[in-house]
Amino acid sequence: MKNHQFRLKQRPTGRAKSTDFDFLESPVSTPGAGEALIRTLYLSIDPTNRIWMSDMEQYMPPVAIGDVMRGGGIGRVVVSNSNRWHVGDLVSGLLGWQDYCLVREADIFAPRTLPKDLPFPLPVMLGACGTTGVTAYFGLLDLGQPKAGETVVVSAAAGAVGSVVGQIAKIKGCRVVGIAGGTEKCNWLTQELGLDAAIDYKRPDWRDALVRATPDGVHVNFENVGGEIMATVMRRMTLGGRMPLCGLISGYNEGTAAVGDFSPILMRRLSVRGFIVIDFAPRWEEATSQLIHWVREGKLKHRETIVEGLENAPTALNRLFDGANIGKLMVKVAE
Amino acid sequence: MKNHQFRLKQRPTGRAKSTDFDFLESPVSTPGAGEALIRTLYLSIDPTNRIWMSDMEQYMPPVAIGDVMRGGGIGRVVVSNSNRWHVGDLVSGLLGWQDYCLVREADIFAPRTLPKDLPFPLPVMLGACGTTGVTAYFGLLDLGQPKAGETVVVSAAAGAVGSVVGQIAKIKGCRVVGIAGGTEKCNWLTQELGLDAAIDYKRPDWRDALVRATPDGVHVNFENVGGEIMATVMRRMTLGGRMPLCGLISGYNEGTAAVGDFSPILMRRLSVRGFIVIDFAPRWEEATSQLIHWVREGKLKHRETIVEGLENAPTALNRLFDGANIGKLMVKVAE
Repeated sequence: MKNHQFRLKQRPTGRAKSTDFDFLESPVSTPGAGEALIRTLYLSIDPTNRIWMSDMEQYMPPVAIGDVMRGGGIGRVVVSNSNRWHVGDLVSGLLGWQDYCLVREADIFAPRTLPKDLPFPLPVMLGACGTTGVTAYFGLLDLGQPKAGETVVVSAAAGAVGSVVGQIAKIKGCRVVGIAGGTEKCNWLTQELGLDAAIDYKRPDWRDALVRATPDGVHVNFENVGGEIMATVMRRMTLGGRMPLCGLISGYNEGTAAVGDFSPILMRRLSVRGFIVIDFAPRWEEATSQLIHWVREGKLKHRETIVEGLENAPTALNRLFDGANIGKLMVKVAE
Repeated sequence: MKNHQFRLKQRPTGRAKSTDFDFLESPVSTPGAGEALIRTLYLSIDPTNRIWMSDMEQYMPPVAIGDVMRGGGIGRVVVSNSNRWHVGDLVSGLLGWQDYCLVREADIFAPRTLPKDLPFPLPVMLGACGTTGVTAYFGLLDLGQPKAGETVVVSAAAGAVGSVVGQIAKIKGCRVVGIAGGTEKCNWLTQELGLDAAIDYKRPDWRDALVRATPDGVHVNFENVGGEIMATVMRRMTLGGRMPLCGLISGYNEGTAAVGDFSPILMRRLSVRGFIVIDFAPRWEEATSQLIHWVREGKLKHRETIVEGLENAPTALNRLFDGANIGKLMVKVAE
C-alpha cells in the first residue's frame, strides 16, 4: 500500500496553489502499540486550512514547511493496535491531506469514532453534523445567546458554518438574515433553508437592503467574514448586541490585519467574542446528538459540494475564497 | 440670582475651544412642583464631554447646538418643591456646565442624594467614589472577571478611571501594569498606588517594557485609549483574555473610527465588551459603599486635580487629551 501526501513546500502568497506543496508517494506506516492506521475517505476543506498554511497569528501552530498539510476528515480504520479503534470503524479527526493517517491514542486530537447506523450519508458527519455544525451550534447558542423574536445576521450564510447557523437561529424562533454572494446562494437561503431574508453583497444596494431587512436592528451578528461586511452589520447592531466571531475570511489570503472599527463595541455596549470549536470539545456529544436529531426531523437541511480526488485538495480550497461554494466543501479521497 | 451657562455654539473641530460655546448670563429658573434648584459646586470633566460635543455615534444623544453643555457634577439643593430633595442636601448627577440646574423627579437621570457625613472631602464623591469609581468597579470586576494571580493591564492608568481600576485589581490580588505618559505619572502609579509596573508610552522602548512587565501575558486589558496602545496590549493577551472596553479616547477629538485589529479577538478567543456605567445603575449602592469602605481603609487612594471657576470648563477638558492631568479632573464652581 502506498500513501500519497501533500507536504507544504512554501507558504502561499495570496491563493494557495498546487505548487506550494510537494505531492509525494511513500510507503504506508505500520501502526505500533496504541496506534491505528486510518484510510482517509473525505477531507473537510475549510478556511482554516489557509490559515494553517500561513505564519499569521493563529490558534494552533502553523503547518511547518515539509510537514503533511493539516486538515480534518473522515476515515475508516484499516489496521488497529489500539482498544480504542476497531477495524472498520469510521472516525473523524485531523487526518491530514493524505491517503492514510497513523493515529495515536495519546494524541489530544486523536480521532473520534462516529456513531453507527447514521440516518444519512457519511459526508453529513463532516458538515452539518460534524465540526462545522458543532461550530455553528456553540458559537450561536452559547456565545450569541439568541432569544426568540430577536434578529440574527450571519455572514457567509451559504457556507458550511453559516448555513447551519441560520437554520439553528430559525429553529430558535429568531428573525434570520443571511449575507451571501449571488442570486443562487440567496435563493437557497430563503427558499430552501427558510431564512427570512438574504442579502446579496454583490449588489450595489446591499447596504440599504440590509437596513430594510433588519427593521429592529441586529441583536446577534454571527461573523465569519470581517472587512466591510462586518463593519456594515456592526453599524446595525442594537445596544447590548452579541457578536460571536467565528472567522475573518476576507483577510486570510493576504494575511493582513483584520481591521475594523471598535467604536460600535463601545457605544453600543456590544459583546464580541472570538471562539474556536475545540474549546467546546467536552460538550461535543451534546451538539452532535442535537444536530443529528434536527437533520432526522427535517429541520436542519444540509448540502455538500464534493470534489473528487485527493490531488485536488489545494485548488478546491480556493472555492471558499472565490465564492464558488455552497454548503460544506469536501474532497472525496476514497470510498 | 444669576445663572451662567455654557451653551454649545458649534461642534468643535479637534480640541474644544471656549469659542465653541456661548457663555451666557440669564435669570435662575424657579422650580415648579416636583422640581428643585441645584447650585453647582463641582463639575466632573471627562472624555465623554468631548464625545457629547460631537455628532459621532455615541450612547446618549449629542448635545444639541444651543443647549447647555451636558456634564456630571455635585451640587447643593437650594430650593426644593420635591419630597425627594431637601434644601441643603448634596446631590450628584448631570447638572450641566452652569451655576444652577433645575432638576425634575421624573427625569431618568435625576440626581442622586449623596450620603451624609462623608469621611473625606466632597470631591472624592465625584472621583474615586463617584461615577468614575463606579465605572472602574463594574468594568473591571463584572466584565474583566480578574482572578488573583492574573495580570491586569490598564491604559490611561493615571487617569480618573484607570487609577481606580489599577488599585481594585491590586486589592483582588492581581499583578497590575499601568500604562501612562511621563515619569511623574508612572512614579505615582508604582510608588503611591502600589502597581507592580508602570509603562511610560512616551519612551521609545515602551513596547519592550510592556513585554517584560507581562511575562505571563495579559489576562485582562481594561481599555481606555484605543489606537496603538490597545493594539500593543492585545498582542500580549492570553487565550480567553477579557477586555472591558471603557473608552477610546485617542480618537475623540478627531471623531474618526477607532480602527483596530480584530484578529487577536478570533485567534486568542478574547471577550471584548463595551460598557457604560449607566447600565449598572441598579447596583450603584453596591459599588459606592464598597469604594467608600476601601478609601476609609486606606486601600484605595485618590487624587483630584481641581480647576477653579466655571468659565474654565472648556479649556480644562483639554488636559485630558494633552496628558496634563493626574487623577480626577474637575472644575470647582462654588463652595
